[in-house]
Amino acid sequence: MRIEIPEGSLFGLANLPYGVFSAPGTPPRAGVRLGDSVVDLARALDDEVFAQPSLNPFMAQGYERWAQVRRQVTDLVSGEVPGEAVHAIDAVTLHLPVEVADYVDFYASEHHAANLGRLFRPDAPQPLTPNWKHLPIGYHGRAGTVVVSGTDIVRPCGQRKAPDEPAPTFGACRRLDIEAELGFIVGAGSRLGAGVSTSDFRHHVFGAVLVNDWSARDIQAWEYVPLGPFLGKSFATSISPWVVPLAALEAARVPTPVQDPAPLPYLRESEPWGLDIDLAVSWNGQEVTRPPYREMYWSPAQMLAHMTVNGATSRTGDLYASGTISGPAKDQRGAFIELTWGGQDPVEVNGEPRSFLLDGDEVVITATAPAADRTRLGFGEVRGRVRPSAHEGE
Amino acid sequence: MRIEIPEGSLFGLANLPYGVFSAPGTPPRAGVRLGDSVVDLARALDDEVFAQPSLNPFMAQGYERWAQVRRQVTDLVSGEVPGEAVHAIDAVTLHLPVEVADYVDFYASEHHAANLGRLFRPDAPQPLTPNWKHLPIGYHGRAGTVVVSGTDIVRPCGQRKAPDEPAPTFGACRRLDIEAELGFIVGAGSRLGAGVSTSDFRHHVFGAVLVNDWSARDIQAWEYVPLGPFLGKSFATSISPWVVPLAALEAARVPTPVQDPAPLPYLRESEPWGLDIDLAVSWNGQEVTRPPYREMYWSPAQMLAHMTVNGATSRTGDLYASGTISGPAKDQRGAFIELTWGGQDPVEVNGEPRSFLLDGDEVVITATAPAADRTRLGFGEVRGRVRPSAHEGE
Repeated sequence: MRIEIPEGSLFGLANLPYGVFSAPGTPPRAGVRLGDSVVDLARALDDEVFAQPSLNPFMAQGYERWAQVRRQVTDLVSGEVPGEAVHAIDAVTLHLPVEVADYVDFYASEHHAANLGRLFRPDAPQPLTPNWKHLPIGYHGRAGTVVVSGTDIVRPCGQRKAPDEPAPTFGACRRLDIEAELGFIVGAGSRLGAGVSTSDFRHHVFGAVLVNDWSARDIQAWEYVPLGPFLGKSFATSISPWVVPLAALEAARVPTPVQDPAPLPYLRESEPWGLDIDLAVSWNGQEVTRPPYREMYWSPAQMLAHMTVNGATSRTGDLYASGTISGPAKDQRGAFIELTWGGQDPVEVNGEPRSFLLDGDEVVITATAPAADRTRLGFGEVRGRVRPSAHEGE
Repeated sequence: MRIEIPEGSLFGLANLPYGVFSAPGTPPRAGVRLGDSVVDLARALDDEVFAQPSLNPFMAQGYERWAQVRRQVTDLVSGEVPGEAVHAIDAVTLHLPVEVADYVDFYASEHHAANLGRLFRPDAPQPLTPNWKHLPIGYHGRAGTVVVSGTDIVRPCGQRKAPDEPAPTFGACRRLDIEAELGFIVGAGSRLGAGVSTSDFRHHVFGAVLVNDWSARDIQAWEYVPLGPFLGKSFATSISPWVVPLAALEAARVPTPVQDPAPLPYLRESEPWGLDIDLAVSWNGQEVTRPPYREMYWSPAQMLAHMTVNGATSRTGDLYASGTISGPAKDQRGAFIELTWGGQDPVEVNGEPRSFLLDGDEVVITATAPAADRTRLGFGEVRGRVRPSAHEGE
């Protein structure tokens, strides 16, 4: 059969993202999305590496193989595809596309870092810490709680202490927030001691997903000094089910903003890896902000070079996220704590003033980017609904 | 054959730790240590779950099964063991015993946290941050660089900036340090939203290992504000190859030091999980410090309850470490930065004044604890030698 691509589809021939899906009665396996269809790769290419419940075995085969399969898939879906290998997107379940090895979250937006600095450390002389423009700050997050889009988010409990309270109390988070981010997935790892230079980025990173790094701001504010965020983040991190191959993002590449002071040599780039990706965040169906990825100070190639410059390995399935994407304008801020300035300046959502998330709220993050054929490509979405805390009344 | 237990062995019948070993020509598999012998469990118990290269499949079978196998193994090694299932410890290679899922490092010694506070934040009004006595502070580390004892440690490179330098420079770490810790391995995980109460500790934690959390103090000092340690820690974390079952540590259980203020209800313990374990750290063959685990403020049951109270899952293979173990006396400090007070007060090692680690240095951490049969049991050792940085002259 010939797969129809609806007019204006964000999943045209220049996108072809990979995911893991299951059709009724069949185990999860790798697929590629085209239009509103999913192509079963194990069947279409007759290769068992795609009959696995994660993309990891395929990703581990390396860069040359990714390029070869992309050419194969492009040829295949440009012509006749065996009907038994094609499923309607509405008829399948989408799963977590990768088995996450280590998860790292960066902090690469200058606008976000400055806003958070003003909100979390109002007495500091500068909103940015002295190291911020010298290195892409990052920290490890919890790999075991990375979940696929559509998974409900249970409001976390924990210790919270407002500055004017004498001691912390235990209870459900009162300042539940989102962070709209882009995540990069390492396909081919690197050995202990080897490092990944900025120019080797494309040989290691397989593709990108959307990330919602759910954040419990009250828990985070009390716990994070001196060793960083922990329970304020570790309850859930949602990612979109479609991994957009790095090869599909060639037309989206742009220089990062000017980096001043010039970064140390290991962070310099021989070619730009800024990305012109437009995100949009909707809150209960209403778009509230449009974070522009092109504003990110540090590129994903710089993040990976930094993460491995101390000799640390990278592994197939490593996920590293950009940190909240915020632009200079108010309606470009990628976290509600910034958008509503710590809750002091609510936004109107469906006619009501809102600051942090209430039970039942649903957040959907989407993104598009220029594609090689002058169309636009989509990342799909990362969606999550807030469910009440298990400890009612707290 | 009957396995001989040498007089004074720390691996008697009341210990029986699990590890992963390979004999020449055979793939890695699970074993139990008795005296100076290793028993091949797949052969001795005729069970394929032990023929795997990590303890994870066995650990995932849960608490009742751990107890059953411990009884089986005790019966077996108390009598005649088939000769083909017994190897001399010197004739086998020991491997990483678990496939590490998430790695978390706590900060549970009051003496260590106070010392580090004085060294890293000399201008702060108090050495401990205000949250320290309310919750066990922790952060996620890099699971992919957890290595087994005996693995060489390559001196990491990174950005360093002394307070009196105008800008950071790149090069090999100048303040390479150790942290002597105990690590706890989750055998049976917990569901999203479920949490693990302090009284459920023994049903989830399989056992304990020694940990050397190698630390690049100059890299750490520059990078760690505001999101915590990252490259200063992620280059390597060494663990001992033998997992001492929690069941073997019953006789070592003691109350933690008095916790004042009283912790919030979810952190209270119905039974004590402090542990009377004596560690010793040797530097190039000379013992330099003896950290006492019984001084740790927060217990491992409290750490796990905290780590999951926000609803985060735990998984088979999760490793969480205690943080540096330091007692009140100088010769009980578990990190060289404390022992030498930031390098200002060197210790004498084989007749030379030493502060941080030089290339070629070797550090060995050992530990013993009271065992059920009034003998003592051992953890074996975690050993590592420092190799020069890949970037010479920096």
